[in-house]
Amino acid sequence: MIYLDNSATTKPFPEVIDSFVTVATKYFGNPSSLHELGMKSERLLTQAREQIAAALKVKPSEIVFTSGGTEANNFAIKGVAFQYRHRGKHIITTAIEHPSVSEPCQQLEQLGFEVTYLPVNEHGMVTAEQVKKALREDTILVSVMHVNNEVGAIQPVEEIGALLAHYPKTIFHVDRVQGISKVPLDMKKARIDLCTMSAHKFHGLRGAGILYVRQGIRLSPLLAGGGQEMQLRSGTENVPAIVAMAKALRIALEKYDKQIDYLHEVKQAWLNELKAIPEIQINTPVEHSAPHIINFSLKHGMKPEVFVHELAKSDIFVSTTSACSSKKKAPSKTLLAMGVGEERAESGIRISLSFENTLEEIPIAVAAMKKAIEKLSEVTR
Amino acid sequence: MIYLDNSATTKPFPEVIDSFVTVATKYFGNPSSLHELGMKSERLLTQAREQIAAALKVKPSEIVFTSGGTEANNFAIKGVAFQYRHRGKHIITTAIEHPSVSEPCQQLEQLGFEVTYLPVNEHGMVTAEQVKKALREDTILVSVMHVNNEVGAIQPVEEIGALLAHYPKTIFHVDRVQGISKVPLDMKKARIDLCTMSAHKFHGLRGAGILYVRQGIRLSPLLAGGGQEMQLRSGTENVPAIVAMAKALRIALEKYDKQIDYLHEVKQAWLNELKAIPEIQINTPVEHSAPHIINFSLKHGMKPEVFVHELAKSDIFVSTTSACSSKKKAPSKTLLAMGVGEERAESGIRISLSFENTLEEIPIAVAAMKKAIEKLSEVTR
Repeated sequence: MIYLDNSATTKPFPEVIDSFVTVATKYFGNPSSLHELGMKSERLLTQAREQIAAALKVKPSEIVFTSGGTEANNFAIKGVAFQYRHRGKHIITTAIEHPSVSEPCQQLEQLGFEVTYLPVNEHGMVTAEQVKKALREDTILVSVMHVNNEVGAIQPVEEIGALLAHYPKTIFHVDRVQGISKVPLDMKKARIDLCTMSAHKFHGLRGAGILYVRQGIRLSPLLAGGGQEMQLRSGTENVPAIVAMAKALRIALEKYDKQIDYLHEVKQAWLNELKAIPEIQINTPVEHSAPHIINFSLKHGMKPEVFVHELAKSDIFVSTTSACSSKKKAPSKTLLAMGVGEERAESGIRISLSFENTLEEIPIAVAAMKKAIEKLSEVTR
Repeated sequence: MIYLDNSATTKPFPEVIDSFVTVATKYFGNPSSLHELGMKSERLLTQAREQIAAALKVKPSEIVFTSGGTEANNFAIKGVAFQYRHRGKHIITTAIEHPSVSEPCQQLEQLGFEVTYLPVNEHGMVTAEQVKKALREDTILVSVMHVNNEVGAIQPVEEIGALLAHYPKTIFHVDRVQGISKVPLDMKKARIDLCTMSAHKFHGLRGAGILYVRQGIRLSPLLAGGGQEMQLRSGTENVPAIVAMAKALRIALEKYDKQIDYLHEVKQAWLNELKAIPEIQINTPVEHSAPHIINFSLKHGMKPEVFVHELAKSDIFVSTTSACSSKKKAPSKTLLAMGVGEERAESGIRISLSFENTLEEIPIAVAAMKKAIEKLSEVTR
């Protein structure tokens, strides 16, 4: 199997599953329980929080565990909106956010909030200048993703953070789901207030995510109840998945340190091969793009979903656009926003790598892709 | 170990953990991915939905998977409120709901909704008559729990459902977290519109829960985004935990069929022993109470948290009030609502059983309790 759909989800590290099983079996107590079984579970939770905070260079009290990236994004956006609704009702975001950012924004519009969706340039990027122009007296939130999930474009979050330092009443949220462990980001330096991460994108398990909440930021809870997670996110903590996530993050960051150069090499080798195929147009920008995402379009009206299925026959797994959008058969939102035109936006294919992918896979996968293109060309002709 | 805190969380069945590991390892694809790896994962999800729907005697399309009970309760309440806000802004609930129902109600009050909290009688029960009297033209939601988590009182949800059949504009939500697999409830017959369940209360894993959404009921998504779960709950589906939940539910319901009489016997034996201890007052009502929850108070100002720790020394695990509230050291909300007085409400102890508990445990645990009471009495004296 050659798995090239790591931006959809990653294969959990075996050590991560082992940790999950140990905690679920031996430390199954509810961390809120007063007795020793609950306390043991609470200690594991505290330890995981400390490990993750240290890895991200923030305080343990700034780490709020969620069920995943979608919850963290919804929580950040709605949490700010409901908490600060008396301060203002204007939100700034971009045209290329993940649906778990754009959809909550649209829900808020129905509740009387106003949202500015910044367009991107041909490289899939917004600028701090655009944010500056869009800022208003009543802007309570700016939400900009770190790495775009469809084409891999890296957004200038540091510059936007530096700009927003002059606007203390505007909260800065960054969706870091695709960037974590692949593209470095110092959340403190970038002056980020809220930051979303998801375990299953870095070889952890589903059911665990993180919202970094900078000290001093208040949020209206999305999940209200028993008051877990410093009163910010209620619900019995998923300690097994959280402990597993702490381990996954440690391993993923270690792999970054050792293998990031190799990952860049793999990406470049992929690009060289793909550029040489005449039926393919590369969409991922050359500069300011992540080391693990390559997006290209198929020419001549070839159907991307048929291409995906052809490759799957050889146990090679790639994606059309993002996983969330792949079944809607709509043109890629990000490609449309980049202005490539409808046809090209409808025929996008995404390769997304992890540190498990190798140079050796490339000739095998490329040969299969050429064969698939040949077959599709025949059908189209 | 004698574990008597099953209403806080249960020990996962070993088969359930096995299922989780198999799915997380072999079927790790994103169900939204177009390729075979995604499709395999989607098939498992569909199968789990069908199994759960069959077990609950509802349609697969009426089962929405969430991250747990707290999310399902928040989703039900806020989802109705935001969806039907133009129809009305009045909600009816009870004074003894779990915080994941009462806290969202309080958040909605801050947003301009009006909430009626029905008081309970000395048996911890509300009546359909009370609901009828509280109903208004603008009542959009009635939320009443099935089994109270602190004392085990069973609420008359069938009667309330029959009443609400005459009020088609009012949606009926039931928190069934404590009742499922212990107290039968036909959701269709009871005319329930929305119903919450949580895997880790029936020996499943954290990170999976269910909101039953009756066909025809619309909800504003709490987690908006990629449009998973019939557009109602976005986020990459936690397929391993969901498959594990389907298995846990099947096993738990089989155990109900075979062992419910034994569970009643165990509860009665516990009650007989506890009633004979002069320092103990039973709070759980004799009638209309669940077979697995026994609540009692310690007399003479004995501190319940010290009692819990004393028992834990003998590897016996019980709880003060609910897990969520146990660290707040506030008097039990349910006991206060039942009118037992502040002192008795402050000294509550909860024993919560599962089908794993036995008659043989009782003499051992009771002896430890008597010893603990003796020690506490000396301290208090």
